[in-house]
Order: sequence, then C-alpha cells, then structure tokens
Amino acid sequence: MNAIVYHGKEDFRFERTADPKLEGECDAIVSVSRTAICGSDLHLWHGGLGDAIAISEGFAVGHEFLGVVQETGRGVRGFKRGDRVLASCTVGCGDCASCRRGVYSGCVTMTKGGGASNVFGFSTGLPGGQAEAVRVPFSDTNLFRVPEQLSDEQALFLTDILPTGYMGAEMAEVGPGDTVVVFGCGPVGMFAQMSARLRGAARVIAVDLDDERLARARRLGSDTVNSARENLGERVLEATHGQGADAAIEAVGRADLITQAAMITRHGGRVAVIGVLTEPTATLPWFLMFMKNLSLRTGLVNPQNHIPRLLPLIEQGRLDPTVIISHRLPLSDGPRGYDVFAHHKENVLKVVLQP
Amino acid sequence: MNAIVYHGKEDFRFERTADPKLEGECDAIVSVSRTAICGSDLHLWHGGLGDAIAISEGFAVGHEFLGVVQETGRGVRGFKRGDRVLASCTVGCGDCASCRRGVYSGCVTMTKGGGASNVFGFSTGLPGGQAEAVRVPFSDTNLFRVPEQLSDEQALFLTDILPTGYMGAEMAEVGPGDTVVVFGCGPVGMFAQMSARLRGAARVIAVDLDDERLARARRLGSDTVNSARENLGERVLEATHGQGADAAIEAVGRADLITQAAMITRHGGRVAVIGVLTEPTATLPWFLMFMKNLSLRTGLVNPQNHIPRLLPLIEQGRLDPTVIISHRLPLSDGPRGYDVFAHHKENVLKVVLQP
Amino acid sequence: MNAIVYHGKEDFRFERTADPKLEGECDAIVSVSRTAICGSDLHLWHGGLGDAIAISEGFAVGHEFLGVVQETGRGVRGFKRGDRVLASCTVGCGDCASCRRGVYSGCVTMTKGGGASNVFGFSTGLPGGQAEAVRVPFSDTNLFRVPEQLSDEQALFLTDILPTGYMGAEMAEVGPGDTVVVFGCGPVGMFAQMSARLRGAARVIAVDLDDERLARARRLGSDTVNSARENLGERVLEATHGQGADAAIEAVGRADLITQAAMITRHGGRVAVIGVLTEPTATLPWFLMFMKNLSLRTGLVNPQNHIPRLLPLIEQGRLDPTVIISHRLPLSDGPRGYDVFAHHKENVLKVVLQP
Amino acid sequence: MNAIVYHGKEDFRFERTADPKLEGECDAIVSVSRTAICGSDLHLWHGGLGDAIAISEGFAVGHEFLGVVQETGRGVRGFKRGDRVLASCTVGCGDCASCRRGVYSGCVTMTKGGGASNVFGFSTGLPGGQAEAVRVPFSDTNLFRVPEQLSDEQALFLTDILPTGYMGAEMAEVGPGDTVVVFGCGPVGMFAQMSARLRGAARVIAVDLDDERLARARRLGSDTVNSARENLGERVLEATHGQGADAAIEAVGRADLITQAAMITRHGGRVAVIGVLTEPTATLPWFLMFMKNLSLRTGLVNPQNHIPRLLPLIEQGRLDPTVIISHRLPLSDGPRGYDVFAHHKENVLKVVLQP
Repeated sequence: MNAIVYHGKEDFRFERTADPKLEGECDAIVSVSRTAICGSDLHLWHGGLGDAIAISEGFAVGHEFLGVVQETGRGVRGFKRGDRVLASCTVGCGDCASCRRGVYSGCVTMTKGGGASNVFGFSTGLPGGQAEAVRVPFSDTNLFRVPEQLSDEQALFLTDILPTGYMGAEMAEVGPGDTVVVFGCGPVGMFAQMSARLRGAARVIAVDLDDERLARARRLGSDTVNSARENLGERVLEATHGQGADAAIEAVGRADLITQAAMITRHGGRVAVIGVLTEPTATLPWFLMFMKNLSLRTGLVNPQNHIPRLLPLIEQGRLDPTVIISHRLPLSDGPRGYDVFAHHKENVLKVVLQP
Repeated sequence: MNAIVYHGKEDFRFERTADPKLEGECDAIVSVSRTAICGSDLHLWHGGLGDAIAISEGFAVGHEFLGVVQETGRGVRGFKRGDRVLASCTVGCGDCASCRRGVYSGCVTMTKGGGASNVFGFSTGLPGGQAEAVRVPFSDTNLFRVPEQLSDEQALFLTDILPTGYMGAEMAEVGPGDTVVVFGCGPVGMFAQMSARLRGAARVIAVDLDDERLARARRLGSDTVNSARENLGERVLEATHGQGADAAIEAVGRADLITQAAMITRHGGRVAVIGVLTEPTATLPWFLMFMKNLSLRTGLVNPQNHIPRLLPLIEQGRLDPTVIISHRLPLSDGPRGYDVFAHHKENVLKVVLQP
Repeated sequence: MNAIVYHGKEDFRFERTADPKLEGECDAIVSVSRTAICGSDLHLWHGGLGDAIAISEGFAVGHEFLGVVQETGRGVRGFKRGDRVLASCTVGCGDCASCRRGVYSGCVTMTKGGGASNVFGFSTGLPGGQAEAVRVPFSDTNLFRVPEQLSDEQALFLTDILPTGYMGAEMAEVGPGDTVVVFGCGPVGMFAQMSARLRGAARVIAVDLDDERLARARRLGSDTVNSARENLGERVLEATHGQGADAAIEAVGRADLITQAAMITRHGGRVAVIGVLTEPTATLPWFLMFMKNLSLRTGLVNPQNHIPRLLPLIEQGRLDPTVIISHRLPLSDGPRGYDVFAHHKENVLKVVLQP
Repeated sequence: MNAIVYHGKEDFRFERTADPKLEGECDAIVSVSRTAICGSDLHLWHGGLGDAIAISEGFAVGHEFLGVVQETGRGVRGFKRGDRVLASCTVGCGDCASCRRGVYSGCVTMTKGGGASNVFGFSTGLPGGQAEAVRVPFSDTNLFRVPEQLSDEQALFLTDILPTGYMGAEMAEVGPGDTVVVFGCGPVGMFAQMSARLRGAARVIAVDLDDERLARARRLGSDTVNSARENLGERVLEATHGQGADAAIEAVGRADLITQAAMITRHGGRVAVIGVLTEPTATLPWFLMFMKNLSLRTGLVNPQNHIPRLLPLIEQGRLDPTVIISHRLPLSDGPRGYDVFAHHKENVLKVVLQP
C-alpha cells in the first residue's frame, strides 16, 4: 500500500510500504478514507521529542484517521468488515489497571516499548494512519462507529485534537460563568476555545500572535488578544474585576506560556497544558503558584473517554469541527502538506489528506 | 408603604402595611424597583404547603425582588445607601454550619421558626418583596450587587428562578453531550432547559401539555414533546439509541412525573426535582430506580451559590433571562397578576411588577 | 456436576445438574472453591422479586463465588487454566455504552433478557455459583485475579457484598469527619459500617433490633442504637449538636427505614439505599426531602469498579472481611444453610459453602 | 503584653510589645493560652521568603495559637468574652469573591498589602500569635469554638499544620485503596501521613533521612524509606506491581523532591506540594509529567474549610494530633525553641509554647 513514510528529520515521503496484517486476535485492519496532519506530527518532522519516539526509517506516520473496517481478528466482538469507524490515536488494551482507570495512554500492555509507543505513527510497533490502511490493536476498545449521518470530515477530529482541546477545558475544570484564557489559536487551541464555551464559560480570551488566526477565533465567539501588541495581563484583570482568569489552557507548547498562564489566573485557579513541550524540563513560577493555590495538569489525550460525549454534540449540530480545515489534499501530496503546515504557509490551519 | 398583602386563600390585596425597619446590626432596607410572582407564591395563594408556611394575615408576600439600598445596619460591610442590589430569596446567616456548607436554606440561625421561615414572604418574621421596601437580614451574605450595565429585568430572576432552573441542571449532573428531558415549560422549566444547554447538553427534550409553551421552548433550542398527544418514552428511546435519557429534570411539581422521569432515564442516570410538590409524601417506582442505579435529588434553591456563576453569563450575553417575561404590571395590579398567573390566562409565562 | 438447584419457593436442593460449557469466545469455566449465601438469594428463596427473576426450575443459584480457572475461550486474554480468580456477581460485556460508564449492571449486551438477567443465579442464561463449576461470560471484564497471599475467605466477599457495603458509603458520599447512620447490622450493613469508617467517618451509628448483631457492630467500632428500645432521632441530634447525620445508609430493604433515614439526616445530607426492597414502589417523605435538600441513591452493585480499591486494603490488613462469617458448611449442606440464614437461627450472620 | 518579637534574621526576642486593640467592628481580641512554632516561621527566622514577607522589626511572630476571647467588636455575632477559641492562621473577610469560593488565602480584602499579608505574624498589619494576646479580624469567619472536652493541645494544630497535612492528602485526591508516598516526616509530613490513612489509603510510604523521625512514622502505621540508604523508586514499584504510587505528597519544600514525586507516581497520578519552597521558581520534569498525565497542586492552607471535618475526628479519638509534640516551653523560652527547632536539636519534632 501507499503511505507517508518516515525517513528522518524533514524527510517524509509518499511511497509504498508493507501492507498491515492482523497480528493479534483483537486486531482490525482499517482502510483509511480520511487522515490529517497533527501538530505533534510536526514534532516528529522537526526531529524533536527525543526518546519518546521509537520510530525508524520506513514506517508510516500519522495518528488521525478514519475509514472502513476491512478485516477483523476472531476476538473482535463489536465490529465487522464494512463498518465505518474512527480510531483513538492512543491505543489501550482496555483491561489493564491503567485502562480500567481511563488512562489508556498509560496502558500497561501497550507501553512496554516505552515512550509514546502506544500512539499510532510514533513507534515501529504501531505504524501510522497517513496510509491507505492501518492495523488497529484491541479494536473493541479503540475503534468507534461513525454515525451514518456524519461526514468523514465531521468525525475525523474525534481521533485526537477535538478530544485534546476538550481535555484542556476539562483539566482546567471549566464551568458555567468562568473566564478562560486559551493560549494559542491553532487547531487544538480553537477546539479548546469551543470546548470552554461548551462547558459554559462566560468569556473565552484567545491569545495568539497571528492576526488571521485571531480573526478566526473571534468568529467562533472568543475575545482575542494579540500578545505582540496588547497587554494580556491588563485585559484579563479588566475583564475579571481585578481577580484574574478562573482557568487557563496552554495550547502552544512553550514553558514561558505556562508561566504567563499562572500569572493571569486567579487564586484557586486551574491551568491545563495541552501544548506539547519538546524540552524535557520546564521552569515554573513556583512561589506564585503556591501563593495562588493553583492546580496544574497536563497529559496525553485519551479520546476513548471523550468520544461518547463529543459525538452527540456533533450529531446535534452544537459542535462543528470542520471549521478548522484550511487544506484538503490527496494523500500523495502529504509531504507538501507537512511543508505548508510546518512553515505556516497559505494561512494554513489544518491539513486533511485523502488516500 | 404599599405591598401585596396576604389575607388568606386567594385573597391577596394591594394595601398599606408597616414600613420595614432595621432589626439587626447586619440588616439592610432595600427600596424595591422590580419584583415578580413566582410559582411557589401560587402555592401560598392556593392555600397549600401546610405547615411550611408561617405567614399570617397582614404580611407582605413575594420573594423575587431587586432594588436600591436605602439604609444599612452598623455591621454591614459590603453595601451602602444607593447600591443597586438583588436579594437571594433564601436567607442565611453565612456563619452557621449549614451556611458554611452552602446550604443557606437550612441556616441554623434563620430556620429556628421551622418550615420555610427563611424564605421572604413565607413567614411573619420575613415579610416579602412584592412591596415598596423590604428588610434583608445578614445582608453581606444575601445581597448581591447588580452591575451597572444590566437592566433590572436582566438581573431580577437571579433572586430565585434562574438559580432554581440552573440547580435542576446541576443536581441532574448535566454535562457535555447529554440528552436531558425537562418536564415543564413554565418559567423554571424554561430556565432548566437553558441551563442544561449551558452545561453542554447535546439535546434537551422539553415536555408540556401547552402548545404555546412548547413553541417557546422550541425557540430556545429545545426539542419538544406534547405528552397529551405524543409518546415521550418512544421519543426518548429513539433519540438515545434505546438507552434512555442521561438526566431528567422535573419542573412541574407532580409525583407522577417523577415516576415518568425515572422511566425514561438510562441506567446510572440522574433525576432532579425542582417542581414543588404540595403533598407531604410521594410514591416512587423504587424497584425500577434500584435496577437502574438512579440518583434522585431535590431541594430549595440557594441562589448565593449560583449567582456568581450566572451573573457573568448574563453580562456576556450568553443567557437572556428576560425571554420568559409575558406581563409587566404596576405593583398595584399585583392581585390581577396573581389571577392571570394562577389561571393560565393571556398566555401568561411570567408576571413582573413595578412598585 | 453438583449444585444448589432452584425448584421453587423455599425448595432449593443439592443435586446433579448440567456441567457448564464454554458458549462464547470470551467465556471461562471456573471450578468453585468457596461460595456464599447472600441476602438477595433469600429473596429468591422466599419467592420474591417477581419479574426481576427469570430463573426456572433446575438451574443453579448463587452469585458469590471464587475458584480456579478450568478452561477459557479463545478470546480470553488475561486468564488461563489454573489462575485463582473471583467473579463479579454482576456481569458486563465491558464494551457497551453502559459498561464504558462503569454501569455494568445495565450492560446492554447482557440485559437483553430483562430484569436481573446479568446476575449469576437469577436467570436461566446465567446459572449460579453455589455449584462445583460456573461459566463466566466476558471473563476479561468480570474475573479478577486473587493475590497468592490472600485466603479464599479473605477474597470471597469482593464478589458482591463488600463492594455493596462500600458502594453504600460511596453513594452516601461519606467523607472525613462525617457522622453516618447505618440501618442494619447484617453482612452488608456491617461492610457499610466498615466502609464508612474507611472513608474517614468520625462516627458510625449502627441501628438494628438484634442485640447480638449490635454487639458485633460495637466490636467493629460503631456506636449502636437498638431501635426497639432507644430513640434514634434523639441520639443522632445529640451526637450532631442538633443538626442531624451527614449521611445515612439503608442496608435492610424496608421503605419505612428510608423515611427514617431522611428524618435523621441533616440539610444537604445524603441517603443511600443498598437494602433490596421487594415491593415495586416506595412511599417517601417528599416534602421533608425537599425542605432538607436531600440526595437519594440506590442501585445494584458493580464490583468491577470497587475491587481495585478494596483488594489492596485487604492485602494490607486494613479491612478484614472474614469477621462476618458465622457458618462454614459443605456445599451439600447448602439447603440447611438457607434455612438457618432465612430464619436467623444459630446467631447466623454469613454462611460460606465449600464444594 | 509580652511576645516573641521579630528583630531580623535569627534574631527573635521575648519582650514587651504593644497590646492588641480592636480596629474593626468584626475584630476580636484573643488572650492566648497555647501557641506553637511552625516550619514556615523558620523561613522567617532564616530570613527567607523575600517579598512575601511584609513584617518589620518590633512585631510579634507566630500563627498557630488558641485561647480565650477577651473582647469583641460590635459586628461580631458568634463569639463573646470568655469563649474558648482557635484561629485560622490564614485570615479572610468571608464575603469577597475569593472567600466565597473557600480560597480565604486569596481574600481580596485582606491581601491588599500583597504577599502573605493575611497570615498572622507575616505582616505588620497582622501581628502574630506567639504572644499573650492577638487581634483577630473578621472573627466570625476566622475563629472556631473549641469543644469543652478537648484539651488545648488536642485543638491547637487545627490552626494550621493539621489542615495543611490534610490539604496535602486532599489535593493529592487520596482515596480508599491508594498507595501514597509522603516526602518528609516533620510535623506536616506526619499529619499528611495520618490524613492519607484517614482517607482510606491502603499503604503510606514515608520518606525521610532521619531514622528517629522514620521510627515515629512507623509507629503511626507508615511504611518507611530512608532515602539516604534505600532506593525509593524500587520500593514503590515493588509495592505497586510496577505501576507507581497513586499519589505523592511533598512535605519538605525542595524542588528536587517534586521531581522525585513525579518519577515515582503512576500514569494519571496526583502530586501535591505542601512543603514551602523558598526559591521563586522550580524546574520540573515536564516531559515525564506530560507522558504520565499528572496533576500537580500546591497552595497555602485554608483551615476554615477543613476544621469542620477534622474537629469531630479529634473528638471521637480517630485523630490524635498531640503525638507530634516533642517540646513544651514557656513562651519566654520561645527564642530557645526556635534555636532547637531550626537546628534539629534534642530530637525536636514540634515545639509548643505557653504564655
């Protein structure tokens, strides 16, 4: 089959690679109809993330994909050939202590290889979804049926970035009436903003440096601050009668923004970090965090927990994830998609690929 | 001063009554600019609620009001003459064990008289707000400043029924993606529907017998079922792939609707009852509730907990409580307002009175 | 094989019945080493529970059992012949919407037969565990490994009644410092008392009519009230400075005790009902519940959720479930065990059977 | 009156200072009967905490004290001369947005001076409690009645360090069955260990370098690790079947221990930091925290929230806070008490002073 294949830093190629095959009784092979490039794929493209990556030359990348079941192992109970499905980007066995707690990303069975070995396209054991077909382990746990009335594009982002944005709002404990600051208006930041509103935020303040992206955020209902020109701290204090934001979500992946998040958050506030920092350590404003009684959460997404909540919202028209799509390319143009996305060309926001 | 004064069953009169005076160091006298008739006032008007009522002839009724501080006791710290304020309908001292837990309705200090003695207009010790002026005890705890940019009508329902509707959604633990059934499209039911959506419900199904009210509910975004003509159970099963609603909110006050709520709710679902039943007991479908692992909650509202969350939503335009107002009358027409509201005349939904 | 077999009201016999066989790919056959008689088995013995029961003559009863895996289907991943295991009394498929929420008792796959068809020994499709061997469906979800250092008797009650007692304390939201009233000092009531203390209750007040049982409760650290002779309400008010209990747990199964629970609970308190009422409806003191802002929860236990928390407590010696065992009989004496347990003979508390 | 008075780094003197006087209507003057030296007083003694301190020469220090009400302002409702009381170390007004959320440490009214200006003895506006008498602002919010049957020593630590230790267990979301690692066996660490058990932890692993302190921890029921000699990571993995601890509590105040806490905690685990770091920033192992989906919380204690839960546990004998007392000195020997505590002399654990 054809796929986007890893050959090293900034060298991803569209080429033939081995067809996926059933390996375990609970595997399924999914024929891909839509896939997308994620910000974390860019970390791989840039050669970052160090030890967390266990992928080597010749393997397919990508972890956001949706398609049709082609073949199933004998232990698969809930799916059969022909079912339209999407896969969680993080794979869990469903039965270990970590999966039973809903922390599939820490699946004892799947993370034996270390690092992010249970995310598609980040490990040689789990080739990615920017491909014509993918093997999905423990498919009863990790596949989700796509309702007939939803288009591929409506459902595609449930695989990763819509749950990631939602998880940001959940980890930041966003509730009715809150003022929430979201750092970043990329795809994940946009979904974090939409999720904050969905959970009842009275006001979402979106922060970015890119006026185009800020304009998009305003169209979604956010207030915006261009931090290159405007004083975020003043704006937040003004909006909150001097108290600070109830919650902040970092959706960029920079340690200095975690510090900013702590600075603009009120006593007893919550900071969630869904941006992926590539440095192993981060220096935080501890004394401030202590004096303010802050809580700070971060982590890999577990879409399995969020899909059952988010799917009905898309079905009912309360969430439209397709608004973030800026580019639709054939899979064969994937390498160009990476180039466009990595260098912020053509007002790119999200690149969708079609095999 | 003038007020709507209780003289017995279906006999409320607009007449002169004693001016309120400061009685405790923490009291404030509020000059009323807007007040409203609540469904629970109707229970009083119909002569119901039995022992819960400790009001006798000659006292002012009403517990939804907003106005301007006229005078304060020496122990009042946060308010002064001229402040525009609204009062929580339930009054707590703020310091007892119950108030510290946020259950102001069970305030040890204020409920010594038994029954609903800490709700304005339900006890001789706490004359009501359908009056030109009212005494508010423990005003630092029970008064809330009205932001300048809000009109009286935008803020008025924070005193009781907006928090009551919201409490219904909170007690029913409504969260993103839920399907929620709300029994009743009266003022409280409408606010429960708006609150369910605000907390992220994917679908709200409103139930009533009155097509006018159902049409209003549809305009707010609810699906509707006229239970006189349509089969609610079938509609809910159809909407939820046969599982039942995640949550149900009873906003009418009838025991048989609690049974219906239990019947249309899924395993592990939640039922909240914010309608006021006048009978002392209710017979519930226990075996069904047991087999379904249901949770059931009811109670008096404590607006003190909800106002800080709801106020910013009104300020930001995410909630418009004025949509329920159907009648605006001078306070002197209050008795006619009761008649209209009690007999569902003139497509009434909510009657606001102006002293 | 031999088993305790249902022949109708008060007619359970020890006799030969069909050997269990693998039916699905995910089944396991467990050879039973210990089993016990549960209070809900008595409902069956007394002929109660009506439609909830779908068992017919000739089927094995019982749902508390522990043993050794004898055979597994090809889809079973986590267990193999020779593993020492216990089974959850309630069986879920692990993948349906209800199981994914942790409400295995409402498993869409397993409850197609209606009623309690997914509890062992209550349905012809799921023969019981008072037998030499049992078929366990979806065994990766419903079986749990027994640590080597635990005896059969230490682990046995994890199958049902220890999680049931714990669920009572959890549904009643028992937390540090609480005063908790537990109605009933039978096996489940005892575990509810132990669980309330485990969750940090400052004081547990156990209520029963049987002085022997009350003495046992005192040995576990509970205060006790014999409600035949003592005034429970006065005792609770005295213990709580006039406020009422923070939480109450009904572990008997009588509607009038739910009313008592509501009466002795404080404003904002929580009532959990884990006793099984055999009547389809219950009449509750609604106006009191409303004025007090009570929450009320009931339901079937889902041991799958609680075993991971309770097992380490037994391993570390913080919980000793064996204290409730009063009778140890061979399985062949099971019918006598039922007679003793049903008629409260011989100071019976809990009967354990050994095949 | 006499007090321990600040004169600069390592220079605290027992000497005469100004008598406290009522300043606001809601103030009370408390005549002190017991007070104690806290680890955070040592930060002051060592000259640390920088800008957070707004105290100048001549003011009394100390924030843990208990005594008898001597005089009250006219706005005080709940207390009168002669009442035996303890004070929360953190003072809130009770009415501002932050206090209403339970974050008294961020009280808008009291923190206008910046830093820790609402902790007794850390600000010139709020002289401390290592004195014969203290002024307590907003006394209805910050004073708590001491039950007659409790000794001064049983109640004293409710002012700060018992709630601090408990808050550690709460912020780490310790629940039944958890394995919890507590870094530090000083007074706060000991209370964190006791609190973890109280919340149902199956196993508490206490870490310290001091064998005497570790022996005390074992007597309280903790497992112990001397991190100078033993490999904590191995011990934790062994105890948790390779998964890591459910929760970790840092009760020392060293950034490197936060890193250790993150390393020994499982996927989805929780880290709480109640030790006070004196450096303004801390470098954390971010990538590890991200891959493990950790939550991290820190903050000043708000005893107002915890006292109602902890007090009944002391009354019922489930918590004995006096076990940590190693030294009882007259207030006049306070300077020696500081010396002993600061230099770990005489197996000191906690120094109590009596005016």
